[in-house]
Amino acid sequence: MRETLAALAAGEISIATAEARLAGYATGEAGRFDAARETRSGVPEAVFAEGKTTDEIHELLDLALETTGRGLATRIDDDTATTVRDRFVDDRPTAEIDHEARANVLRVRTADFEPPVLEATIGIVTAGTVDAGPAGEAAAVVGEMGATVERYDDVGVAGVHRLFDELDELRGTDVLVVAAGREGALPTVIAGLVDVPVIALPTASGYGYGGEGEAALAGALQSCTALTTVNVDAGFVAGAQAGLIARALDGARK
Amino acid sequence: MRETLAALAAGEISIATAEARLAGYATGEAGRFDAARETRSGVPEAVFAEGKTTDEIHELLDLALETTGRGLATRIDDDTATTVRDRFVDDRPTAEIDHEARANVLRVRTADFEPPVLEATIGIVTAGTVDAGPAGEAAAVVGEMGATVERYDDVGVAGVHRLFDELDELRGTDVLVVAAGREGALPTVIAGLVDVPVIALPTASGYGYGGEGEAALAGALQSCTALTTVNVDAGFVAGAQAGLIARALDGARK
Amino acid sequence: MRETLAALAAGEISIATAEARLAGYATGEAGRFDAARETRSGVPEAVFAEGKTTDEIHELLDLALETTGRGLATRIDDDTATTVRDRFVDDRPTAEIDHEARANVLRVRTADFEPPVLEATIGIVTAGTVDAGPAGEAAAVVGEMGATVERYDDVGVAGVHRLFDELDELRGTDVLVVAAGREGALPTVIAGLVDVPVIALPTASGYGYGGEGEAALAGALQSCTALTTVNVDAGFVAGAQAGLIARALDGARK
Amino acid sequence: MRETLAALAAGEISIATAEARLAGYATGEAGRFDAARETRSGVPEAVFAEGKTTDEIHELLDLALETTGRGLATRIDDDTATTVRDRFVDDRPTAEIDHEARANVLRVRTADFEPPVLEATIGIVTAGTVDAGPAGEAAAVVGEMGATVERYDDVGVAGVHRLFDELDELRGTDVLVVAAGREGALPTVIAGLVDVPVIALPTASGYGYGGEGEAALAGALQSCTALTTVNVDAGFVAGAQAGLIARALDGARK
Amino acid sequence: MRETLAALAAGEISIATAEARLAGYATGEAGRFDAARETRSGVPEAVFAEGKTTDEIHELLDLALETTGRGLATRIDDDTATTVRDRFVDDRPTAEIDHEARANVLRVRTADFEPPVLEATIGIVTAGTVDAGPAGEAAAVVGEMGATVERYDDVGVAGVHRLFDELDELRGTDVLVVAAGREGALPTVIAGLVDVPVIALPTASGYGYGGEGEAALAGALQSCTALTTVNVDAGFVAGAQAGLIARALDGARK
Amino acid sequence: MRETLAALAAGEISIATAEARLAGYATGEAGRFDAARETRSGVPEAVFAEGKTTDEIHELLDLALETTGRGLATRIDDDTATTVRDRFVDDRPTAEIDHEARANVLRVRTADFEPPVLEATIGIVTAGTVDAGPAGEAAAVVGEMGATVERYDDVGVAGVHRLFDELDELRGTDVLVVAAGREGALPTVIAGLVDVPVIALPTASGYGYGGEGEAALAGALQSCTALTTVNVDAGFVAGAQAGLIARALDGARK
Amino acid sequence: MRETLAALAAGEISIATAEARLAGYATGEAGRFDAARETRSGVPEAVFAEGKTTDEIHELLDLALETTGRGLATRIDDDTATTVRDRFVDDRPTAEIDHEARANVLRVRTADFEPPVLEATIGIVTAGTVDAGPAGEAAAVVGEMGATVERYDDVGVAGVHRLFDELDELRGTDVLVVAAGREGALPTVIAGLVDVPVIALPTASGYGYGGEGEAALAGALQSCTALTTVNVDAGFVAGAQAGLIARALDGARK
Amino acid sequence: MRETLAALAAGEISIATAEARLAGYATGEAGRFDAARETRSGVPEAVFAEGKTTDEIHELLDLALETTGRGLATRIDDDTATTVRDRFVDDRPTAEIDHEARANVLRVRTADFEPPVLEATIGIVTAGTVDAGPAGEAAAVVGEMGATVERYDDVGVAGVHRLFDELDELRGTDVLVVAAGREGALPTVIAGLVDVPVIALPTASGYGYGGEGEAALAGALQSCTALTTVNVDAGFVAGAQAGLIARALDGARK
Repeated sequence: MRETLAALAAGEISIATAEARLAGYATGEAGRFDAARETRSGVPEAVFAEGKTTDEIHELLDLALETTGRGLATRIDDDTATTVRDRFVDDRPTAEIDHEARANVLRVRTADFEPPVLEATIGIVTAGTVDAGPAGEAAAVVGEMGATVERYDDVGVAGVHRLFDELDELRGTDVLVVAAGREGALPTVIAGLVDVPVIALPTASGYGYGGEGEAALAGALQSCTALTTVNVDAGFVAGAQAGLIARALDGARK
Repeated sequence: MRETLAALAAGEISIATAEARLAGYATGEAGRFDAARETRSGVPEAVFAEGKTTDEIHELLDLALETTGRGLATRIDDDTATTVRDRFVDDRPTAEIDHEARANVLRVRTADFEPPVLEATIGIVTAGTVDAGPAGEAAAVVGEMGATVERYDDVGVAGVHRLFDELDELRGTDVLVVAAGREGALPTVIAGLVDVPVIALPTASGYGYGGEGEAALAGALQSCTALTTVNVDAGFVAGAQAGLIARALDGARK
Repeated sequence: MRETLAALAAGEISIATAEARLAGYATGEAGRFDAARETRSGVPEAVFAEGKTTDEIHELLDLALETTGRGLATRIDDDTATTVRDRFVDDRPTAEIDHEARANVLRVRTADFEPPVLEATIGIVTAGTVDAGPAGEAAAVVGEMGATVERYDDVGVAGVHRLFDELDELRGTDVLVVAAGREGALPTVIAGLVDVPVIALPTASGYGYGGEGEAALAGALQSCTALTTVNVDAGFVAGAQAGLIARALDGARK
Repeated sequence: MRETLAALAAGEISIATAEARLAGYATGEAGRFDAARETRSGVPEAVFAEGKTTDEIHELLDLALETTGRGLATRIDDDTATTVRDRFVDDRPTAEIDHEARANVLRVRTADFEPPVLEATIGIVTAGTVDAGPAGEAAAVVGEMGATVERYDDVGVAGVHRLFDELDELRGTDVLVVAAGREGALPTVIAGLVDVPVIALPTASGYGYGGEGEAALAGALQSCTALTTVNVDAGFVAGAQAGLIARALDGARK
Repeated sequence: MRETLAALAAGEISIATAEARLAGYATGEAGRFDAARETRSGVPEAVFAEGKTTDEIHELLDLALETTGRGLATRIDDDTATTVRDRFVDDRPTAEIDHEARANVLRVRTADFEPPVLEATIGIVTAGTVDAGPAGEAAAVVGEMGATVERYDDVGVAGVHRLFDELDELRGTDVLVVAAGREGALPTVIAGLVDVPVIALPTASGYGYGGEGEAALAGALQSCTALTTVNVDAGFVAGAQAGLIARALDGARK
Repeated sequence: MRETLAALAAGEISIATAEARLAGYATGEAGRFDAARETRSGVPEAVFAEGKTTDEIHELLDLALETTGRGLATRIDDDTATTVRDRFVDDRPTAEIDHEARANVLRVRTADFEPPVLEATIGIVTAGTVDAGPAGEAAAVVGEMGATVERYDDVGVAGVHRLFDELDELRGTDVLVVAAGREGALPTVIAGLVDVPVIALPTASGYGYGGEGEAALAGALQSCTALTTVNVDAGFVAGAQAGLIARALDGARK
Repeated sequence: MRETLAALAAGEISIATAEARLAGYATGEAGRFDAARETRSGVPEAVFAEGKTTDEIHELLDLALETTGRGLATRIDDDTATTVRDRFVDDRPTAEIDHEARANVLRVRTADFEPPVLEATIGIVTAGTVDAGPAGEAAAVVGEMGATVERYDDVGVAGVHRLFDELDELRGTDVLVVAAGREGALPTVIAGLVDVPVIALPTASGYGYGGEGEAALAGALQSCTALTTVNVDAGFVAGAQAGLIARALDGARK
Repeated sequence: MRETLAALAAGEISIATAEARLAGYATGEAGRFDAARETRSGVPEAVFAEGKTTDEIHELLDLALETTGRGLATRIDDDTATTVRDRFVDDRPTAEIDHEARANVLRVRTADFEPPVLEATIGIVTAGTVDAGPAGEAAAVVGEMGATVERYDDVGVAGVHRLFDELDELRGTDVLVVAAGREGALPTVIAGLVDVPVIALPTASGYGYGGEGEAALAGALQSCTALTTVNVDAGFVAGAQAGLIARALDGARK
């Protein structure tokens, strides 16, 4: 603790960094950033952009960058992402910035941040084009946690025979995140054919009764195979859980 | 009309028969029996036994027998079925009686009733053992309407590869009724692989959230393939609709 | 297969066409187009425009045109339809383009496409003006599959006596698709009077409790007559199921 | 007030009667009986038997009898009704007792009670046999209020043409209470054809999705005609509202 | 009929008028106008403006004007109302036009239309400011049917003692329509104190759980007093039912 | 701690008492008893009897008695209560046992237990007879915490004028718990007239839509006055919260 | 009363003030302002701005100011607040105006208004940044009622260990209002650790199933600790109830 | 294949064994037993006893025993379990039988069955006594798959401080299954403190709104930490998913 205080007194670290080292979080106008989350629970803290102002997102990402060397914002629309990116380009010219529009994700990293590398592969499967957003969010957090991502897109059950072409590959992953909307049959069909853990990621595609993802969610919860699920469109959570399993496997393999 | 009245006056026909010929229905203590339903809408009238007393069921079946030559009761439990059967054995010794316990169906026919025969085949598929009740109800009404029934039982999606062994047979039917509970993925998977009309029959198996058949129903309504559905456990309706298509095909073939 | 590859090598067919012939689908930026769907399941693949960008819709329709000779987009708003239409006018001047605004449907066909013709008639009934959209979607897919469409509009139950004027015509069709919102009584009333299969198409008109089409859907599922239903506003599905029955009848008649 | 107190002091009236005259209610072990309800709100107080013990029902009916000259219990099962009836036969041999089993209603009256007579006719219509309970409850309260009851039973929409035979009679009533379960289309169909007020009485027949009367209730609330509704199986409320209209008409006619 | 045809041939009446006289409805681009509705079911046909284009609303009102002498549009926003009003000012300068903005209602009448007059008074009560819209819609249809309207505004239960000041007046009406949102206690409290029929009109004020009017609707359906209800915000239906009772009373009084 | 261990070693206290003193809870076959709950959160721990066996209830009450001098079981049916009571009569003849059947509550106390006394009064109001169970549960916990309970029973809103007779008394309490089922208007009406905190206790009386207490709960949540609520039939929680306020007042008064 | 009338006649008070003194409310175009609410039920009347026009809000605040010396508007967006504020600056230059943007609250006070002061402290806790709005609304009403507010922000359960740092402070308050969205675990966790009354304030953060605050509300209703709850985002109600308890404590302390 | 057929012909294996080797499943009266499930998807097939007759359960367990060396029945009540156990004692005296009443699980194994052993530890946590059933079901399948089970019972959040005593142990497991009913806060609290994957197992304890486990399920889906969930009471699924992760870790460790 003394060391941290000395560094702060010497002006070597910012107040936010000092606070984060001592209390596990850093406080700004926009609230607390949980800098110790990754150490404590294995998942890097992310900024849920929906419902936050551009200022708040920028400040929280900045706190994240300063205290952990990187920052991740999810559910960020294109305009906000561009504004935030521009500010970082101005303020922190050495930072690496990456905006993945389809997944609504924005990532920043300091130049000297060393990303983790896990010896594990997460397969991310989508049933249709519309599932790309949540699946991308899942892929982003998996990538951030250091595991390898394999994508299998547009593997719908409307022609289930085509699934068999990719079955060997699916069986070769360590964990599968399967994103599907409408009736959400894909996670069930896949979980019946592979022996790796499957995490269902129901998406809010569809219309009419059950069209906000409730049908896909109910399908995952009632699945006659063994799989777990996350909430509708909860790509971050699905990816984080897959990442935690990857971490455990990485530990066992090394 | 005069003829009917003359026959009644001569004691050749009962009051119920006369009323049915003139008004299209016969009236008893237990309510009206819609004797003209089959002629008008193509589906034989059935007695929904749930919530009716043994007396009411017996009287309505008797009216049915008298006015149309046959009677069908659905949702009838074993004890009630036995009681009703025994009464018919006593009262109408020449009638044929058939009790299908698993489907909760009781059928009576006069000795000279000539059942219809349709040149069409309805495939009835179940995902698991628990779907036997509603599927049996569907089969009963299809049989009553004269079409051929083919059964494909226990074809769950927990091992979807096995479905392919029976795919050619499924494709060879005229209509498919697919009964499934839990997440209800089977109708969707099948409808994506065949070019005959598929009618989903969601069943109330399962537990927890969506366990009363809502998940399976929502899955049918949100299916990414083209199928229609009936209510949870509505075997009669699924069978009747399949039978109407069979009737149309029979008309076209003959 | 060799033939296809030779044609590709010779530049006679595009990559998309070659892929579709070999794998059953064609892949673009916007995802896979299921070119084999019609052969496999009897229903032409359609592009669900809602939630897709103009680029994605255009690309998928183009893939459809190239691999199957035609393309169908549903749930497409007027502005998007106009943009897509204009692109086709520029790129593929010989293609036939048809935009049906009320039904939110856009159709393209190559000049030499030979549409199927089925010997069967589908009646499409609406209860009120507001049901025109989903009913039009159903009519579009029925037409695409080759059956004759007869429309019966504004046949509400608020004055049920008028229904009888059209009863004979309704009885003369092969299948009826009945679109109704609010309390959705029309499919039930019709199904009690005709002996052809009735498919209910609940629509999202109404307000307050049950106003998003749930009341009409519940009414179809609880109907005291024998009918099947599709989800709220699922015009495509209702039309496709009607088309499959038409196909079967056409086969039996020819 | 003095008069009441004098009568009590003289032993001419019971404590309960005195309390009812002064406070508008009488109090027993089982709670308060609202003796002034009829005067205040035009509807006689009834004992809702469901969930009450035999003792409580008996005591409340006795309070009713003593303070208003009559008592009405609804939702009373056969066994309880028999027990309560027997007690009255013993305790108050001059009281008239009437148990209507199908409607689950028990009525008691003192020998000198003069029932009200209203110059108005309420038509009570049922769609099927299973609606007899709630319809009977409605009829009981209408009768208790003094209006004439006309019953039209088993008038389902599965054969809507038969409704027209009775249309003139229906139009001749002052108010219609229409009980229907399943999809509950009947109140809507009737309200579109008559110009008297229609009160829908949804019933809890049916099964699966919406089978506890929710579909019928939603149908009444979404009706494309002008009708009001009561809760599922709320026969008492439907009858009471019809009775209030009858009272108003009676006042206008006399 | 001959007369009508002669008048049409002579150019004395329009096609629409002739069709309305013969078939009971008039047909335009926007659908059928049910001109016979008032005669048949006692309630004037109204144009539900929500979801219709300005052209459609104008055309249907014009058909109404031509065939019945008046027209009523409900759920019409200010801009649309102004546009439609302007067209009528241009096209039919002698017509009377009335736009009630708070109630979202537009009324047109021909110069020689003689409005009905009923000897009956409908009280329309609101719990708060936000209930003015649906209550105004109810008042409009009541007025259109010819009854006298008395308004009692802002009579909330948050200070129930104030209700007693107006109790005598409320008791003096023939029917009460009580509009209330939030917990919807007002209809229940009033119905317990008056002996005229009460129609609850739940409104969609409120927020959070039950805030779209479900709480108020549930409160009306579960009311421990005797009242009937309409759907959330269904001012037209509440007013029409009140108007039908007023018609009956008027008949009895005259 | 040493003291506790010495007492245990000397056989002066039981293992359960020692564990409770050290860890704050005592462990039996049936689970842990949270003996420190009262100290920590101000509310005595109670045994929720529903779903537990007689053995489990008895053991947990015994642990409670041993570690805190008293025990409280809620939701206990008559038969179970009798059995448990009998065991205590045998095993711990000096204990005081109290079974309140209507409230489904069983209380045991050691002979030397000194009950707390709070200088505060909680009014507990019921709308009808059927609310007695949950209200009694609330009264039991309030009494257990030491506050004075005043009961106001059968104060329904069907005749709201009678409420005014008791208004002064209601205003004189410190907190009001208002139990009501059906439409649950009573808590709202009372909270609009008094300036003490009101806690709504919705009860599961009623039938049909919203009849499991949802209507009453929604009414409390949407109330246009300021009150808080607990879950349906959660008498214990309502009483405990009222007791916590009483504790605070008691502290302020002493 | 005479005094009030004399003052009005003399022009010393406005009509609104006279009406408020005599009737307890003042009436404007926008409805009634319940000036006696604070006296009667202990909570100052507030203007719920959502769904009201700027004119209505301004008028009601003005009535409030005139009759009670202050006015409070909740759920007011920034633009409306600015407009209303500007009008007051013009019209009533001596009034104090306060706009708290994050809480969507606008307050006005006359120069000589003497705010109440209560000897009690309300702790207001938020789980995350997004809960600031409802929590601020609660704080505003608490402040208006005169109690001291202590804020504890961003105390999420994602790192529950940090809660212990603030536990002593939380235990030192008189009442706690705990605002939380998502799964809403925070009120339960806190209520298990403190012995002051806890009021849960569920907020509408989150997404997918239960994301409109239903999960947080259900969590509060099902809490295994003793707490009461208000509706989703009902900051005013939570604050008012806390204020009422503060008033009671203040009375006991003084 | 030839080998299998030879063995069958030689009477060395039963028909069921032969069928299972060739087709992957064995067929009996009660349906198919999916003998290849464990090989294909890593999870041993189990018999879901609820809704099956004793005969069906016995036959399916017998098929399981014969084809895979063991059998597992879940959701089996005590009486059924005893009957089935007795049959096995008679028929297959060498089989090991184990009935775990609290978990409603019955297990049979042939004498020479060699259970799998996985180098991995699954922690199974319960919030209260009532969660023992689903947790036991989870433990049974984990045990069957070969992983070590550690139990942590009665760790409720009503006193969250006690959780910290066991935190180090919880962190030392490989996967955590956390069973909780009521508000279901426990999985969230734990997942915020550990870095191993957490699987929530919501249970159907509780009462009133959300009391069938919906509140706990919604809490898991909305959790502000990273966890996945299964359906209410789906102990088998939670255990199977935990077992699949254990299998993967075992593979990585060996």
